[in-house]
Amino acid sequence: MIELALGSGGKDFQDFLRKKILHYFNNSFLNQKDDGAILPKLNGHPVMASDSFVVTPRIFPGGSLGKLAFCGTVNDLAMMGAKPLYLGLNLIIEEGFDMRELEFHLKEISFLSHQYQIPIVTGDTKVVSRGSVDGLFISTTGLGESDKKLPTETITVGDKIIINGSVGDHAMTIFSQREDLGFDSDLESDCMALHEITLGLINKYSGIKFLRDATRGGVSAVLNELAQEYSLSLGIYEDKFSLSPAVLSACELFGFDFLELANEGKFIAVVDENEAEEVIEYLNQNWSQKSSIIGEVTELNSSSVSLKTLLGAQRIVAWPQGEQLPRIC
Amino acid sequence: MIELALGSGGKDFQDFLRKKILHYFNNSFLNQKDDGAILPKLNGHPVMASDSFVVTPRIFPGGSLGKLAFCGTVNDLAMMGAKPLYLGLNLIIEEGFDMRELEFHLKEISFLSHQYQIPIVTGDTKVVSRGSVDGLFISTTGLGESDKKLPTETITVGDKIIINGSVGDHAMTIFSQREDLGFDSDLESDCMALHEITLGLINKYSGIKFLRDATRGGVSAVLNELAQEYSLSLGIYEDKFSLSPAVLSACELFGFDFLELANEGKFIAVVDENEAEEVIEYLNQNWSQKSSIIGEVTELNSSSVSLKTLLGAQRIVAWPQGEQLPRIC
Repeated sequence: MIELALGSGGKDFQDFLRKKILHYFNNSFLNQKDDGAILPKLNGHPVMASDSFVVTPRIFPGGSLGKLAFCGTVNDLAMMGAKPLYLGLNLIIEEGFDMRELEFHLKEISFLSHQYQIPIVTGDTKVVSRGSVDGLFISTTGLGESDKKLPTETITVGDKIIINGSVGDHAMTIFSQREDLGFDSDLESDCMALHEITLGLINKYSGIKFLRDATRGGVSAVLNELAQEYSLSLGIYEDKFSLSPAVLSACELFGFDFLELANEGKFIAVVDENEAEEVIEYLNQNWSQKSSIIGEVTELNSSSVSLKTLLGAQRIVAWPQGEQLPRIC
Repeated sequence: MIELALGSGGKDFQDFLRKKILHYFNNSFLNQKDDGAILPKLNGHPVMASDSFVVTPRIFPGGSLGKLAFCGTVNDLAMMGAKPLYLGLNLIIEEGFDMRELEFHLKEISFLSHQYQIPIVTGDTKVVSRGSVDGLFISTTGLGESDKKLPTETITVGDKIIINGSVGDHAMTIFSQREDLGFDSDLESDCMALHEITLGLINKYSGIKFLRDATRGGVSAVLNELAQEYSLSLGIYEDKFSLSPAVLSACELFGFDFLELANEGKFIAVVDENEAEEVIEYLNQNWSQKSSIIGEVTELNSSSVSLKTLLGAQRIVAWPQGEQLPRIC
């Protein structure tokens, strides 16, 4: 059990740090136990991203708070076209929190950190009294490196909009777990680190013009933001999306719009139309069978997102309003 | 009032972001509204630090949660000998939180960010339901740059231990506010950004071998960590410390050990003995009248911290045990 004294900077805390945290994240930077980490020089541009994670439940099919905290920030760097290099890890822990669960999350992060060679180089632990935080919140910070910016300003009419697989799996997994809906057996969060895919794409294809992961607010938020920021009209096709049967049922039963559902392993790319088919082939051969072209840029100097439905009607895809599912990530 | 929907990534959230957050932290990196920030190339080594802040009360004489969140991470970079360049800002907000107070903290951060030209380049906002977090927690992440590491491995017998002013002001301010002790009028947190002082020192003196801010666990934790990490025996003198009358009274009344009290604007430096007097003169002329040499390195290859008390007795300065004051930062 986590006691309040662990957050105080004293001897108990030092012992805790040494035993638990340094144990899982053993590396030369963290082992210096300084206030921060001095890192090797970078050749490219430094890229920074940071994110907080408050998901509930903290453990779910396909992922956990710890996994999400690693992947979420790595993906933010990946979407900038960067190679993720280092992470910082901040824990805010409620007094009385189960030590085994804390270790579970640390192990999840440690596993990914070793798998992808992205060391945890700095961090901080705060323990707050019972009731001051709901269990465990994690903030992560990423430092990456990038040679060049994606050429987003060259987006033009005809460029294709791509997604790397089915949508809604993360949101519906969390929803199903919370509401105990009983269709969880088919459903698993898509939570994963995307940087190997995006770096593969950028290295292979010069026509990758925009990348954004479709997390909170889903595909709808990403496309509306893109349309607004760069004054683009975008057209997408409902029949080009891939949805798992469980997600489809949940959308029908509970009235969710699949375009607004949060994902944790899906990104939208805008790709030069001449490379789009090849990109899909590359994605489907190397990563996911369900990557697809979901639409294209239809007009410049205007700003809208429209969907051609299965029945052939056109509808405007609006910004997601209000809160569909709080604490989804 | 902060509504839950603001944390969802939808239209409400975009409006909130645009109006409040981008308003206060207007800069070209943040205005791109990407998942992260691509930054100019660095010449030196990148230095990373990150920290979470959960202080209560959130507003106190001399500071606030916002000010602390800025200064705390800037100071972590400063103690690495780095020049702080950029910050990331993560907010975790309780549903129903007072919008004016949120703006107060954002303004505090914005003011310091402009004053020191350390832009907020990335960040994230999560809103959680009532009871899931106590009001507002802030995590900050810093990226700095450093040309060289401090020569901590050259610390030797005779090197002087320095502090840049009086101790305990932050801890006793928070304690006094919480317990409503009525001696707050004399007392103010020492919360401040220290990087201008430390960069000044490093540029001027080659004999600055170690820097660490004496936050949680106070001077005692810093010295014990130093002694243990580098196998040093350290001797300090009670009469060389400067304490404000209010801190002194509080220590006497409530039995606090001033060496264990948290500070937010004080650092310990280990300095070559030939430069120590000059360093004190520099500090006192430019920054604080109360900087002093508090002790020296007495032995290598052993590990202890001892204090010569006002009465002339020697006592071991142990690691702070347990929790003196939770949520001090």
